[in-house]
Amino acid sequence: MARVRLTVAYDGRGFHGFADNPGVATVAGTLSRTIERVTGTVVELTGAGRTDAGVHAWGQVVSLDLPTGTELELVQRAINKLCGPALVVRAAEWADEGFDARFSARWRRYRYTIVNRPVPDPFLAATAWHVPQPLDLRVMTLACDPLIGEHDFSSFCRRPRAADGQEPPSLVRRVLDARWEDEGDGVLRLWITATAFCHQMVRSVTGTLVDIGSGRRTAGEMTGILRARSRAAAGGVAPPHGLCLWDVGY
Amino acid sequence: MARVRLTVAYDGRGFHGFADNPGVATVAGTLSRTIERVTGTVVELTGAGRTDAGVHAWGQVVSLDLPTGTELELVQRAINKLCGPALVVRAAEWADEGFDARFSARWRRYRYTIVNRPVPDPFLAATAWHVPQPLDLRVMTLACDPLIGEHDFSSFCRRPRAADGQEPPSLVRRVLDARWEDEGDGVLRLWITATAFCHQMVRSVTGTLVDIGSGRRTAGEMTGILRARSRAAAGGVAPPHGLCLWDVGY
Repeated sequence: MARVRLTVAYDGRGFHGFADNPGVATVAGTLSRTIERVTGTVVELTGAGRTDAGVHAWGQVVSLDLPTGTELELVQRAINKLCGPALVVRAAEWADEGFDARFSARWRRYRYTIVNRPVPDPFLAATAWHVPQPLDLRVMTLACDPLIGEHDFSSFCRRPRAADGQEPPSLVRRVLDARWEDEGDGVLRLWITATAFCHQMVRSVTGTLVDIGSGRRTAGEMTGILRARSRAAAGGVAPPHGLCLWDVGY
Repeated sequence: MARVRLTVAYDGRGFHGFADNPGVATVAGTLSRTIERVTGTVVELTGAGRTDAGVHAWGQVVSLDLPTGTELELVQRAINKLCGPALVVRAAEWADEGFDARFSARWRRYRYTIVNRPVPDPFLAATAWHVPQPLDLRVMTLACDPLIGEHDFSSFCRRPRAADGQEPPSLVRRVLDARWEDEGDGVLRLWITATAFCHQMVRSVTGTLVDIGSGRRTAGEMTGILRARSRAAAGGVAPPHGLCLWDVGY
């Protein structure tokens, strides 16, 4: 057996998230069953990011073991025939023995797309959040600055359950970059890179940034929201279909 | 009553074409029933292009009559709330008395999108034809030239039924422009403008151009295909979901 690295894209609308979950269609479940069917090998998948239900991916990375000598290109083609176009393997390659899609990752980059026009767009409806009220990109850009660096992101994350008698896991994360890109015609993209993210972090950050951009809050409040370490301090959670796991660095 | 002009975008996957057709969801049927519900006025719609089942539109133009003084902005917003995001009115405005979306049109422009990569793309699957084998854009561009001008497009059109004892309608059309745009990453767009199109013309032209681009035919054959005036001379019909009625000139 040898380690394999897959780069996977999917339309999140067809899946109840990445993580395997018996009885519902998930990315990991669909992928592992298809690989087992194609190769005859029972596989265990590890993903770089556990995307939620409805969240898309362009560059999700998955690691698994397959028998040495497996024709990866044929496996890739078979998966894409059986699962595509909703779920496709963009690349399949042999990796170092120690490669682990989750623990070897140095950073993850997510993209959140907003369509900021009065009228919705039928062709962006699947991959962008439609925000009809005008957003001030300048203040939304200012409000990104306090996010960069190492912080406790409790205000922006669903609190994880602690194991019995244990401390709850830390929500300290290091954000390497957070910036808006204006694509024109009202298409706004938030690019956010961190060593790792906690649950619902990008969607909560986006919801708060939209509150700021629409004037319900000021850019200056972002630092206080972060320091509060309380879910109640932040804004709402942006819908999942605007979010996409774009790529992962190793 | 006064004449109204709507600019309408829709995701063709949800509709059995533009034209009203009792018992199935069509663009004209959905739009007219919604306008009647919102305004209380019975309307008759005229569209610039009768798009087929599965074909998209970004700038379909529709004309109809509404009572003078109707608040068009409120009507637009109500339609978008009820029909969006699959079907949206991008603009609603008063037009000259003699304006007719179909007969006043000087030209229609269609866009056909191909994704020319080995691996399909989950995010373009709804709006592009996935062609995995390599296409030579240079010869596909050469093969567009013979299409420009006034020709009998019988080779590229479904023959319309003639009324009893009548000559079948002419399939002579004037193509004003036909060119490929390379967007990078294998995304190829055919832009084709004509005073009017006959049925399945853009999809048949695209199918033939893909035959040429993949080497099954040569660019030099295009003139002969056109002159044959026979459906059998042309290539296959490209799938509807790559096609989009982009805009209409008046």
